[in-house]
Amino acid sequence: ISDAIRDGAEGFFRTQYGTISKMAVLLGLVIFSIYMFRSTNPHQESSGVGRATSAYITVAAFFLGALCSGIAGYVGMWVSVRANVRVSSAARRSAREALQIAVRAGGFSALVVVGMAVVGIAILYATFYVLLEVDTPGAMKVTELPLLLVGYGFGASFVALFAQLGGGIFTKAADVGADLVGKVEQGIPEDDPRNPAVIADLVGDNVGDCAARGADLFESIAAEIISAMILGGTMAKRCKIEDPSGFILFPLVVHSFDLVISSVGIFSIRNTRDSVVLGAIEDPMAILQKGYSVTIVLAVLTFGLSTRWMLYTEEAPSAWMNFALCGLVGIMTAYAFVLITKYYTDYKHEPVRSLALSSATGHGTNIIAGVSLGLESTALPVLVISVSIISAYWLGQTSGLVDESGSPTGGLFGTAVATMGMLSTAAYVLTMDMFGPIADNAGGIVEMSQQPESVREITDLLDAVGNTTKATTKGFAIGSAALASFLLFSAYMDEVASFANVPFNQVDIAIPEVFVGGLLGSMLIFLFSAWACSAVGRTAQEVVNEVRRQFIERPGIMDYKEKPDYSRCVSIVASASLREMIKPGALAIISPIAVGFIFRVLGYYTGQPLLGAKVVCSMLMFATVSGILMALFLNTSGGAWDNAKKYIETGVLGGKGSECHKAAVTGDTVGDPFKDTAGPSLHVLIKMLATITLVMAPIFL
Amino acid sequence: ISDAIRDGAEGFFRTQYGTISKMAVLLGLVIFSIYMFRSTNPHQESSGVGRATSAYITVAAFFLGALCSGIAGYVGMWVSVRANVRVSSAARRSAREALQIAVRAGGFSALVVVGMAVVGIAILYATFYVLLEVDTPGAMKVTELPLLLVGYGFGASFVALFAQLGGGIFTKAADVGADLVGKVEQGIPEDDPRNPAVIADLVGDNVGDCAARGADLFESIAAEIISAMILGGTMAKRCKIEDPSGFILFPLVVHSFDLVISSVGIFSIRNTRDSVVLGAIEDPMAILQKGYSVTIVLAVLTFGLSTRWMLYTEEAPSAWMNFALCGLVGIMTAYAFVLITKYYTDYKHEPVRSLALSSATGHGTNIIAGVSLGLESTALPVLVISVSIISAYWLGQTSGLVDESGSPTGGLFGTAVATMGMLSTAAYVLTMDMFGPIADNAGGIVEMSQQPESVREITDLLDAVGNTTKATTKGFAIGSAALASFLLFSAYMDEVASFANVPFNQVDIAIPEVFVGGLLGSMLIFLFSAWACSAVGRTAQEVVNEVRRQFIERPGIMDYKEKPDYSRCVSIVASASLREMIKPGALAIISPIAVGFIFRVLGYYTGQPLLGAKVVCSMLMFATVSGILMALFLNTSGGAWDNAKKYIETGVLGGKGSECHKAAVTGDTVGDPFKDTAGPSLHVLIKMLATITLVMAPIFL
Repeated sequence: ISDAIRDGAEGFFRTQYGTISKMAVLLGLVIFSIYMFRSTNPHQESSGVGRATSAYITVAAFFLGALCSGIAGYVGMWVSVRANVRVSSAARRSAREALQIAVRAGGFSALVVVGMAVVGIAILYATFYVLLEVDTPGAMKVTELPLLLVGYGFGASFVALFAQLGGGIFTKAADVGADLVGKVEQGIPEDDPRNPAVIADLVGDNVGDCAARGADLFESIAAEIISAMILGGTMAKRCKIEDPSGFILFPLVVHSFDLVISSVGIFSIRNTRDSVVLGAIEDPMAILQKGYSVTIVLAVLTFGLSTRWMLYTEEAPSAWMNFALCGLVGIMTAYAFVLITKYYTDYKHEPVRSLALSSATGHGTNIIAGVSLGLESTALPVLVISVSIISAYWLGQTSGLVDESGSPTGGLFGTAVATMGMLSTAAYVLTMDMFGPIADNAGGIVEMSQQPESVREITDLLDAVGNTTKATTKGFAIGSAALASFLLFSAYMDEVASFANVPFNQVDIAIPEVFVGGLLGSMLIFLFSAWACSAVGRTAQEVVNEVRRQFIERPGIMDYKEKPDYSRCVSIVASASLREMIKPGALAIISPIAVGFIFRVLGYYTGQPLLGAKVVCSMLMFATVSGILMALFLNTSGGAWDNAKKYIETGVLGGKGSECHKAAVTGDTVGDPFKDTAGPSLHVLIKMLATITLVMAPIFL
Repeated sequence: ISDAIRDGAEGFFRTQYGTISKMAVLLGLVIFSIYMFRSTNPHQESSGVGRATSAYITVAAFFLGALCSGIAGYVGMWVSVRANVRVSSAARRSAREALQIAVRAGGFSALVVVGMAVVGIAILYATFYVLLEVDTPGAMKVTELPLLLVGYGFGASFVALFAQLGGGIFTKAADVGADLVGKVEQGIPEDDPRNPAVIADLVGDNVGDCAARGADLFESIAAEIISAMILGGTMAKRCKIEDPSGFILFPLVVHSFDLVISSVGIFSIRNTRDSVVLGAIEDPMAILQKGYSVTIVLAVLTFGLSTRWMLYTEEAPSAWMNFALCGLVGIMTAYAFVLITKYYTDYKHEPVRSLALSSATGHGTNIIAGVSLGLESTALPVLVISVSIISAYWLGQTSGLVDESGSPTGGLFGTAVATMGMLSTAAYVLTMDMFGPIADNAGGIVEMSQQPESVREITDLLDAVGNTTKATTKGFAIGSAALASFLLFSAYMDEVASFANVPFNQVDIAIPEVFVGGLLGSMLIFLFSAWACSAVGRTAQEVVNEVRRQFIERPGIMDYKEKPDYSRCVSIVASASLREMIKPGALAIISPIAVGFIFRVLGYYTGQPLLGAKVVCSMLMFATVSGILMALFLNTSGGAWDNAKKYIETGVLGGKGSECHKAAVTGDTVGDPFKDTAGPSLHVLIKMLATITLVMAPIFL
C-alpha cells in the first residue's frame, strides 16, 4: 500500500512540477524582457547595474527561488511517503515510538525547508556581493543589495502558489469524493480498502499537506527575510549607520538560530521516553506543546542575543533593546494566534461545542452556525495583529535611530523585527504541521492493511492531534502573513522609490483611482476563493462519478472479491487538479500586473505620475486585509466543522450514524475546501501579490 | 387571518420602535453633550453658529430624521398589512387585478418614503436658512448650510439599522423555524394553517421586508441627498460660483422628479388591462419590467433637464452636459446591477442551474457550490462600479469648473451626480421591492384560508416574481451604496476639514495606525455579519423548540381538531429578535466612535494631529469595500440557493421530495439569514458608518 501511495505522490509531483516549471520558464522570459526594456537612471548605470545586469540577476534569482521551492516541496513529500509506513509499523509496538518517528520525520523536512531558505538567500547575497564588487568606490552600496534578491522571493512564491493550489485541490477533491460515495452512500468507514478513491485520498495528504505546506513556508520565510533585509538596508542608509551589514543580515542570523533551537525542541521530545509507561498513553498534544515551550523559551533568549550582536550601533546605543522587545512582541503574537485558533477549533471549548449542538436541528443550522463562527473568529486575531503592528512600530520609532533631519525612522524596521520574532520558531511549528499528514497516512495504511484495533487506536490518537496542530499552524501562518504584510508593501514602496528616483511614501485612498484599486484588490480575494472552492467541487464531482461507476461495474469490490482500480482515481484527480489550478493561479498573477499597467497608462493620460504604482499598492493593501480575514474565516470554520464532527463521533448528541452526525458530516465536507484549499492558498496569494509587485514594479512606472 | 397578521405586525412594530426610540433619546443626549463640549473656531462663532446652536441643530435634525424614518417604516407596514387581504381576494377574480393592487399598494408606500426624505430635508434646509439668516452679512454662507443637515441622515440611518436588524432577524427566524419543523420534520406544506409558526412567518414578511426596507431606502436617499448637498456646497465655494444654490439643491430636484416619473411608471401598469385576456396569464415580470423601462426613459430625459436648469453656470457653460453624462453613467450602473443580479439569481441562467445540479451529489456540494457562486458574483459588480466611479469622476473633472488656482475640481461632484442618476428611479425600484412581500402575504392568506387551487396558482406566480424583484432591488441598493460610498467619505473629509479648520484631503494607508484602522474596519464587517447570522440561528432554534412543544402537547393540531397557539410563536420571535438586534447594532455604533477616540488620544501622545480622523476615515473606506463585497456575496448566494430550490421544485432533477430537493432546501435555509438579515443590514451599516462619523467628527479631533 505504501508503495502505491509513494508512486501516486511521486507521479503527481513530477507532472505538477513539470507544468509549473514550464510556466516558470515562460514567466522568466517575460520578466527578462520587462527588465531589458525598462528605463534606468544614471545612478544605477554608474554603479554598474544596468539593464542587462539587473535583468540577468532578477531572472537568475527567480529561477533559483523557484528551484529551491520545488526542492523544499519534494523533500517534504519524499520524507512523508517514506515515514508513513515506518510510523504505522512503530504504532504496532508503542504510541511513543510512533510519535517520535513522526515528529523526527516532520522535523527533518522542516529543518531542510528553513535551512534552504536561509542558505539560498545567503549564497545569492554573497555571490552578488562579490560579483558586483559591492562597497568599492563607484559600485553599488551594500544597502541597495537586498533589492536584487526580490526575484528569489517571487520565484519561491510563484511555485508555492501553484503547489498549494494543485496540491490543495488534489487532496480535498479526493477526500470529498471518497467520503461522499464511501461514507455517505455506501456506509463504509473512512480509508476502507474497498473504496477506489482511498489511495488518491492518501496520496493527496502527501502532495497537498506535506509538499505544498513545505513550499508555502519556504516562500513565507524567503519573502519575509528579503523584505526585512530591504527595510534594514533602507533604514541603515537613511540613518547613515557606518556598518549597515548588521541590519541587513539580521534576518539570516535569526533564522539560523531558529534551526538550532527548533532542533533542540524536536529532540526534547525524546525525553518523554521515561515519563510514558508502556500501555498508558500520554496525551501526544501535551508532549508536542512541551517541545514548543522549550523552543519558545530558547527563542526569546537567542533573539535577545542576536539583537545585541547585530543591531547595536554607536548612533543609538539602546536601540537593540527596543528591537529585542519588538521580537518579543512577535513571539507573543505567534503564541496568541496559536491560542485563539485552538479556542475556536478545539472541541474542548465553547464554540465547537455549540456548533455541534446546532447540528441537532439539521444541516442548515449547522452551516449557518459554522459560517457565523468562522466570521466571528476573525475579530480577536485582528485585534492582536493591530496591537502588534502599532506597538512594534512604536518601539522601533522610539529606538533612538534618527535620519539626517533628526526625525525617528526605526518604526518600519521594528515591525520587521517583530515579524522575525514571530518566525523565530518557524521550524518547530512546521514540524508540528508536517507531523499531521504523516500520522494521518500511517492511520490510513493501518486501516487498509486491516491491522488490529489497538494499533488503529494509536494512529487515530496521533491523527486527532495532527488535526489540531494543522489548524494551529495555519493560524501561525496567517498571523505571520498579517504581520509581514505591512513590511512587504513598505518594501514595495522603497523599490518603487528607488526605480523612479522620486520619493514614494504615500498611498492616498481619497484619490478615486487608488480607491478603485483597493476595491479591485478585495474583489480579487473573493474571486480567487470562489474559484479555488469551486475547483474542488468540480473535481470531487468527477471522483464521485468514477467511484460510483466502479462500484456498479465491479460488484465484487464490496465483498473484497475484486480489487478496485485505485490508479484510475489517482490519475483522474491528478489531471483534473492540474487543469483546475490554472484559472485561480493565472488570476493571481495576471490581475496585479494588468491593473498596474492599465492605471499607469491612465495616469499618463490624466497627468498623474506614479498612478500605476499607487493603485497597485492600494490593491495590495486591500487584498492583504481582505485576504487575512477571508483566510481566517475559511481556516477556522473548516477546522471547527471538522472537530464538531469528531466531537459528535466521541458519542455525544447521538454519536456516529445519528441525524446529528450526518449534519455534522455535511459541515465537514463544506469545510474541507475551505480549510485545505482556499484558505492556505490565500496565505500564499497574499505574499505572492507582494513579491510579484516587487518584481514587476518597473512596468507600473 | 389578516387580522392576526396585522395585530402581530403592529404589536412588534410598537415594541421595536419603543426600544429604538429609547436608544435614540439616549444617543441624542450623547450627541448633545459632545457638541456642547467640543471646541469651536472663531469663524464659526462669528457666523452665529456657536456650540449651543450647533448642538441644538444637530440633535433636532437627528430626532427629526429618526422620526421620519420610523414613519417611513410604519407606512410601509401599514399599507402592506392592509393590501395583502385585498390582493388575495382580487386573486379570486383575476391575476391582472391582483398584480395591479399589489403594485399600487407598493407604489403608494414607495412614494411616501421617497417623498418624506425629500420634504424632510427641504423643510430642514428652509428652516435653517431662515432661522440662521444665512447669506446675510456676518452670518454663515449658504455653502456651509448642508453640513448642518448631517444629524438628519444619522437619525435616519440609526433607525434603519435597528429596523433592518430587528425585522430581518424576526422574519428569517420565523421562516427558518417554521420550515425546519413544518416542511422538514412533519412534511406539511409551507404556510399550512397547522403550523404554529406560520403567522409569525407572515408577520415577519411585513415587519422585515416592508417596514425595514422602507426605512432602509429612506435612509439611503436621505444620506445621499445630504452628502451630495455638502459636496455641491464645497465645490461651489471653491469655484466661487455666484449663485451656489443650484448645486446645493440639485439632489432635491432630482428626487422630486423621481416622484413624478415613478408615478408614471406605476400607473403605466394599468394599461395592461387591454393586453391581458382573462384566464391567459401574462408574465407579471414582463409587465413590471415594461413599467421600469418607461421610468428609465423618463429619468434620462428629466435628468438632462434638471442638469441644464440647476447646474448651468456662466463660469463653465458646458459643465451641465458633463454632469448630465454623469447621471447617465449612474442610470446605466443601476441597470447593469439589476442585470448582473438577475443573471446570478434567476434560474433561467447558467449559475443557478449548475447550483441545482450540484445538489444532486448532496448537501455538502450544494453548499460549496453556493458559496463559490456568491463569492464569484462579486467580481462583475465591482468592475462596473470601478468603471462608474472613475468615469463619473473624470467627467466631473473635465467639466470646466476650476478653483481659484485654476485646477479642475468637479470630480467628486461628478460622482455625486452619478449617484443621483442611479437613485433617480428609486421610487419605482422600491415599488417593485414592496410588491414582493405583499404578494407573498396574499399567497399565505390564500393558503391558510384554504382557497381553491386556481387562486393559489395566481398568488404563487406573483410570489415567484416578487422573489426575483426582491433580489434585483437588493442589487440596486448595494450598487447605490457602492457608488455613494466614495461620496460619503468625501463629505466626511470636508466636515473634518471644516471643524478642524485645516485641510484634510489625504488618507495615507502607509501610516501604520491608518492601516490598522482599515484592518479594523474590514473586521467590523465580518463580525457584524457573524452576529447577524448567528442571531437568526439562535432565534430559529427557539421557534423550533416551541413548535415541537405545541405539536407534542396538542396532538389534535395535525388533524385540524385543535387550533395552534399562533400568538405565542409571534411573541417568542418578537422578544428574541429585539434582544438579538442589540449586539450587532451596538457594535456598529460604538466601534467607529471607540476607534476614533482611541486613536485621537494615541495621536495626541505621539504628536500626530488628525490621527483619529484619519484612522476613522480609513476604517470607513475598508469597511465600505468589505461591506459591499460581503453584502453582494450574501445576497447573491442566498438568492441563488432560493431559486435553485424553486428550479428543482419545477420538476427537474427529481423534483419535490427527492434527495436532491432536500439538499437544495438546506441551501435555502442557509441562504435565508444571508440574503434577508445580514445582507440588507450591511447596506444600512455601510451608510450608517458614514453618517455616524459625519456626526461624531468633533470627538475625533
